[in-house]
Amino acid sequence: MLQSKLFTKTKKESPADEVSLNAELLIKAGFISKELAGIYSYLPLGLRVIKKIENIIREEMDAIGGQEMKTSILQNKEIWEKSGRWSDELVDNWFKTKLKNGGEVGLSWTNEEAHANILKQYINSYKDLPIYTYDFKDIFRNETRSKSGILRGREFYWKALYSFSKNEEEHNIFYEKAKQAYKNIFARVGIGHLTYLTFASGGTFAKFSHEFQTLTGAGEDTIYIDENKNIAINKEVYIDEVIESLELKRENLIEKKAIEVGNIFSLGTKYSNPFDLKYKNENGEDNLVIMGSYGIGLGRLMGTVVETLSDDKGIIWPESIAPFSVHLLSLGKDENVIKESSSLYEYLKSKNIEVLYDDREDLSAGEKFADSDLIGIPYRVVVSKRSLDFGGFEIKKRIEKEGKIINKDELLTILLKPSH
Amino acid sequence: MLQSKLFTKTKKESPADEVSLNAELLIKAGFISKELAGIYSYLPLGLRVIKKIENIIREEMDAIGGQEMKTSILQNKEIWEKSGRWSDELVDNWFKTKLKNGGEVGLSWTNEEAHANILKQYINSYKDLPIYTYDFKDIFRNETRSKSGILRGREFYWKALYSFSKNEEEHNIFYEKAKQAYKNIFARVGIGHLTYLTFASGGTFAKFSHEFQTLTGAGEDTIYIDENKNIAINKEVYIDEVIESLELKRENLIEKKAIEVGNIFSLGTKYSNPFDLKYKNENGEDNLVIMGSYGIGLGRLMGTVVETLSDDKGIIWPESIAPFSVHLLSLGKDENVIKESSSLYEYLKSKNIEVLYDDREDLSAGEKFADSDLIGIPYRVVVSKRSLDFGGFEIKKRIEKEGKIINKDELLTILLKPSH
Repeated sequence: MLQSKLFTKTKKESPADEVSLNAELLIKAGFISKELAGIYSYLPLGLRVIKKIENIIREEMDAIGGQEMKTSILQNKEIWEKSGRWSDELVDNWFKTKLKNGGEVGLSWTNEEAHANILKQYINSYKDLPIYTYDFKDIFRNETRSKSGILRGREFYWKALYSFSKNEEEHNIFYEKAKQAYKNIFARVGIGHLTYLTFASGGTFAKFSHEFQTLTGAGEDTIYIDENKNIAINKEVYIDEVIESLELKRENLIEKKAIEVGNIFSLGTKYSNPFDLKYKNENGEDNLVIMGSYGIGLGRLMGTVVETLSDDKGIIWPESIAPFSVHLLSLGKDENVIKESSSLYEYLKSKNIEVLYDDREDLSAGEKFADSDLIGIPYRVVVSKRSLDFGGFEIKKRIEKEGKIINKDELLTILLKPSH
Repeated sequence: MLQSKLFTKTKKESPADEVSLNAELLIKAGFISKELAGIYSYLPLGLRVIKKIENIIREEMDAIGGQEMKTSILQNKEIWEKSGRWSDELVDNWFKTKLKNGGEVGLSWTNEEAHANILKQYINSYKDLPIYTYDFKDIFRNETRSKSGILRGREFYWKALYSFSKNEEEHNIFYEKAKQAYKNIFARVGIGHLTYLTFASGGTFAKFSHEFQTLTGAGEDTIYIDENKNIAINKEVYIDEVIESLELKRENLIEKKAIEVGNIFSLGTKYSNPFDLKYKNENGEDNLVIMGSYGIGLGRLMGTVVETLSDDKGIIWPESIAPFSVHLLSLGKDENVIKESSSLYEYLKSKNIEVLYDDREDLSAGEKFADSDLIGIPYRVVVSKRSLDFGGFEIKKRIEKEGKIINKDELLTILLKPSH
């Protein structure tokens, strides 16, 4: 797209009311806009990142048999009374509102009830199971404090998958598949090397739940990592008994700050019981369905990438989720430069490469370079009088210090390489 | 996808608490699930339709220069006080809720304020304009009555685009482009032949607003159509003066019931004024931005298709928005039939044709035919002992009475034809 047409512009000043790095950079670069503390709108560049993350998650969920749906945000009080989670005394982060003709509704803050209640209509026999349902959804949590930018929102965009299995064995097989799918997701969005499968408290059913924790000083959690085994223990269960049961040694464990980017739970019959979610087995006997829950916040994931991969000049997007693959900069007002830049822009587009073309004529080279570093697109390609004199275009990765001048064929080879 | 894996099943009984045809059919066929009156969840088949509609709308919005973003659902009271639309006395369909640490927020019921407030950060000079922003968003309206299924929801999925132009001339040029984009959308989703550009009351700024009204007995509006000129007048402005100004004649106008599937408005400075949305022109003078608003409800559009195109056996989806292109039915338990069906399924998938494969073994042919008619996928392909004996597969369009038996090559030619 033409940068002259993109309505957002970078800001020189950091926002006065943000203390988190992710919000500061994303607002300055024009990816998000703050509505209220913990409530952000996603601008065109930010939405492009969210959609790439969404597509990666969708592919991984579909690959393990997930069926996507779109459940309502407004939630029926009666459904939540069944599970015992309507009361504000037990759940302290509800947003609730009133129907004009009487009655209260809640805004989704999680989705077990919605999925279990829908599946109640469709599960009868063992032949109907297993089922895996998921949705992408705006989720609302009435937090008292919201200072972490898009890492912890009052409103945030979320994927939740729920598994419905006949028995623990069938559940466990899927749980391991989901665990692998989550590892794939974090690897694909570019933070696999910083993300640890972390053992955390499991609630009433299983011994542990599993968190995916990404190392960052901005994290709210403390975890103990074993760098060789690539697993970690959350502080909340960091006791000798747990360390031993995982065959780890205290001396190999290093304390780190981290942020939880995903969480998977075995729920057992905790929700199938109140919803009377039963199936008839081969002998005609009724059995309760075994459930699992697998959540991931897309904004939080995006914010974590910014927290962990940026430098002092701005954001560094991994290629997989960058808003564009190439930032094409045309420098100066030389007619030939403008002609060559525009022609290269059209050429790259024709090869299905996503290009943000900085065609703005009233900015200096320095301003364009600073903008490009702040926005953080993986490849910067510069067209200038100098680059043309040297026979081509200057290409530089966002993470590299020095660029090199290459011709159009070489450029295409780099930009179309398989990792792309 | 394998129908044996699709978790939804068709229902024989109509829901007791629905009076609208769209809700009845969509619930029976497993496209949606009711949460509360006017609040529905979209199940996998329903979400597939919504996404196809969304993609068509996105293509049309992008083609006229729209930039997509994702604004928050929770809305800042201060922003709406600026435009004078916070008060429940003036706006009677707000859902509002409270922040735990004090203060009230509203749930989006329209989006002028959100877009104008964001653009206030970025519009300074005439060089920044025009800008066209849009989003797809869940919208909330606290309706007292909700009996029309997904035609009128308390929560519904919506696209809104806003235009920001330098002056009326620039605005009018875009307004005409948007009008054409809307016509394209209704044609592409399959109701173009039933949809009339309708002159309606324009509010404070323009003489008229333009509605797109689709003829259906289920419609809440009364319009007067000129079938030859393909335009209509809403009852609210059906007076001699208007009829004459449009160069129509009362004797050529026929009264019809219709539903409004889209609405476009010239807003003038109604919202740019309270947000002080100004730009400096070439002479350095401040001018207010001219706005326009262009809305369309995706659920309403889907419901309108169901209301207008179904028959007594079920839904009839246009090819462009059908959940799948082909419903492949395997009849009987004959081993060769199952083998040929499965092989055809894999073959069609390899050609990127979207197939729902009814591989369920415990259903009769009659049950499968009834399900297929209810769900309404455009092409039904039957594999049976009889079809194989006659050298192939029986293909029938949902709208046709009789099928014909053809071989695999002929089948592919039909399914890959350009209209697909």
